[in-house]
Amino acid sequence: MKQLKLRKGAEKRIKAGHLWVYSNEVDVNATPLKDFSAGEQCLLESASGQHLGLVIVNPANLICGRLVSRDKQAKLDKSLLTHRIKIASALREQRYDSACYRLVYGDSDGLPGLVIDRFLNHFVVQISNAGMERLKDEIVQVLEKLFKPESILFKNNGKMRLSEGLESYVTFAKGDCAVPQLEENGVKFRVPTTTGQKTGWFYDHREGRDALRHYVKGKRVLDLFSYIGGWGVQAAAFGAKEVVCVDSSSQALEYVAKNAQLNECADKVSVLEGDVFDVCKTLKAEGQRFDVVIADPPAFIPRRKDKKAGEAAYQRLNQLAMRLLSKDGLLVSASCSMHLAEETLVDILRKTARTLEKDTQIIERFTQGADHPVLSAIPETRYLKALFVRVLPQG
Amino acid sequence: MKQLKLRKGAEKRIKAGHLWVYSNEVDVNATPLKDFSAGEQCLLESASGQHLGLVIVNPANLICGRLVSRDKQAKLDKSLLTHRIKIASALREQRYDSACYRLVYGDSDGLPGLVIDRFLNHFVVQISNAGMERLKDEIVQVLEKLFKPESILFKNNGKMRLSEGLESYVTFAKGDCAVPQLEENGVKFRVPTTTGQKTGWFYDHREGRDALRHYVKGKRVLDLFSYIGGWGVQAAAFGAKEVVCVDSSSQALEYVAKNAQLNECADKVSVLEGDVFDVCKTLKAEGQRFDVVIADPPAFIPRRKDKKAGEAAYQRLNQLAMRLLSKDGLLVSASCSMHLAEETLVDILRKTARTLEKDTQIIERFTQGADHPVLSAIPETRYLKALFVRVLPQG
Repeated sequence: MKQLKLRKGAEKRIKAGHLWVYSNEVDVNATPLKDFSAGEQCLLESASGQHLGLVIVNPANLICGRLVSRDKQAKLDKSLLTHRIKIASALREQRYDSACYRLVYGDSDGLPGLVIDRFLNHFVVQISNAGMERLKDEIVQVLEKLFKPESILFKNNGKMRLSEGLESYVTFAKGDCAVPQLEENGVKFRVPTTTGQKTGWFYDHREGRDALRHYVKGKRVLDLFSYIGGWGVQAAAFGAKEVVCVDSSSQALEYVAKNAQLNECADKVSVLEGDVFDVCKTLKAEGQRFDVVIADPPAFIPRRKDKKAGEAAYQRLNQLAMRLLSKDGLLVSASCSMHLAEETLVDILRKTARTLEKDTQIIERFTQGADHPVLSAIPETRYLKALFVRVLPQG
Repeated sequence: MKQLKLRKGAEKRIKAGHLWVYSNEVDVNATPLKDFSAGEQCLLESASGQHLGLVIVNPANLICGRLVSRDKQAKLDKSLLTHRIKIASALREQRYDSACYRLVYGDSDGLPGLVIDRFLNHFVVQISNAGMERLKDEIVQVLEKLFKPESILFKNNGKMRLSEGLESYVTFAKGDCAVPQLEENGVKFRVPTTTGQKTGWFYDHREGRDALRHYVKGKRVLDLFSYIGGWGVQAAAFGAKEVVCVDSSSQALEYVAKNAQLNECADKVSVLEGDVFDVCKTLKAEGQRFDVVIADPPAFIPRRKDKKAGEAAYQRLNQLAMRLLSKDGLLVSASCSMHLAEETLVDILRKTARTLEKDTQIIERFTQGADHPVLSAIPETRYLKALFVRVLPQG
């Protein structure tokens, strides 16, 4: 196997536990990156020749190497895939009552570039790097062997694939179930995996949604960026008096209606199609008020350079949401932007509340669940925030 | 009412939402601090004479003023106490099925210096500043009116009272129930309020303890710094095969045994009395292993200046805990030190794991629950961390 040599000192971060090699850390005189093909496996070594581990290389990327193992003999093949997926599965089986979860979460499960969401016996696979793409067939074989799935969907149309030089496609490797069903916190959902966002569902907010049950009984709830009703339909199922789901996608809102029906709460759930910011302004102008407003937008800060504009967008959204709250209302403010630190979101809420002369108590804090483990050495593997904020008149 | 004048610029933090006035922010030429008595109420104003709010003053303290209200007419009296306790109670009643919770959490509930824990119809009150001490009788009257308690205990022996010039005492204002019972996550506890730590119980770890149920079935569990069994007895009640509770207090361990009995799991729970660090070394020497180790120590960093020594203590403790884990074991690592940021604890775990050639996944993160609300403007109101860490052989 070829070797990739680091510059002097660059081994420190890797030894401290991190798994990513940046292109400017490579000794390109000794081991020119152009000699590697995208997805090639090679051995990483320090400037002094010390073995560091097995990496998957992509010469065109800023993160040009991803560590897979520190073992000298390791190779990322069917056998290691099986081993790692078994370890990942053991955690989820222990933690969750039904087989509805993120089975594999990339680097955190020792499988960089691989995400697998499980909907009972249906599996949706997302590959985001060239090394994992080479193992497509093996991934199918391992899933086949371990779980005997009814269907396996490759949802390989993510943005990260572009930078890896990978084509975009959505195709079944087995079966053809395009709308599997899942259960989360006792509530059922039908999920459009082939046409919906990402894998079709966002398992990461499970714990936060579960906590809604303590706050929505008999209440009027607004779910902004509802997608197919993850928060809103659960609120209705937990006893909300009325739920309004807002999204710009008519297809998503069709699924809100279907999922409400599936849980026998269709009479409580209505939808509004349109730009969320515009809809909020209209609702405000109409004098509408809600006891609970959920603001769970898509990532407003997809890249570090979007930080300023993105933070302003979070502030605008949370201000609109706070203005729609009734007295002693609850704001659920979420962010999936890895570049937005939790404490920055807290500060945005503080500022927003002050401009409205409100006091805010943060009463619940959630992050991604156990099926999205965080590596202590890689803060980047943590991205999700969901804060439950009690908004009170200024004391 | 007297006025307390700030130096130029010092009003900014207060306007941004913070509630604390530091002694070096006061314009002592205009309003000498020595003119105030401990616990006096006065009006805070900016250098330009703008009204900022009502503060309780203690001239001898670094935090010499605590804002109670921004209202020009406000006065901290029986009426405002009633109002604030009602608002605090509304949140807890909505959130929790049984009346076992922290009813009032100081600044976060607009009542600086006041903590009240509720054990069904028994109330334990902790006063930590001179302003609140003046309202002792009113606090009893308000509790009496709102809740008709069976007992009210003043557990006024905290360290902070010294700096406020307050005496230390433990006395009943009503009734004499020294061992009330509570229920947490469906598990019962008898709590020695008069002789135990703080109010007698730590409600802040409720959510983390509840999550134990997913990880302890059939497992061998070690609870370090167990106190009266908050984590350990719940682990046993949730189906652990065996639980060992370690604490240096024989009284605490007597209550572990009583509480295990109360939940019909006394056969699974044993205790070890001694210094936790020493006991861990002995267990290691004996070759003992546990599937789950809970390390929930007292604050190792009580003051900012203890940071370095405290962080070293967290590292030593977590290293001892990790060494006692069986393969694919779970470490529950907690800290109640406000001066230890969550990310610092994560980093301590990373370092500790690396020295043992282990990989760590953080699979659950908890902080204080809804009965310990955090003010977004006062990061100091957040202090609790509980991380569930899966410790794996290095990949």
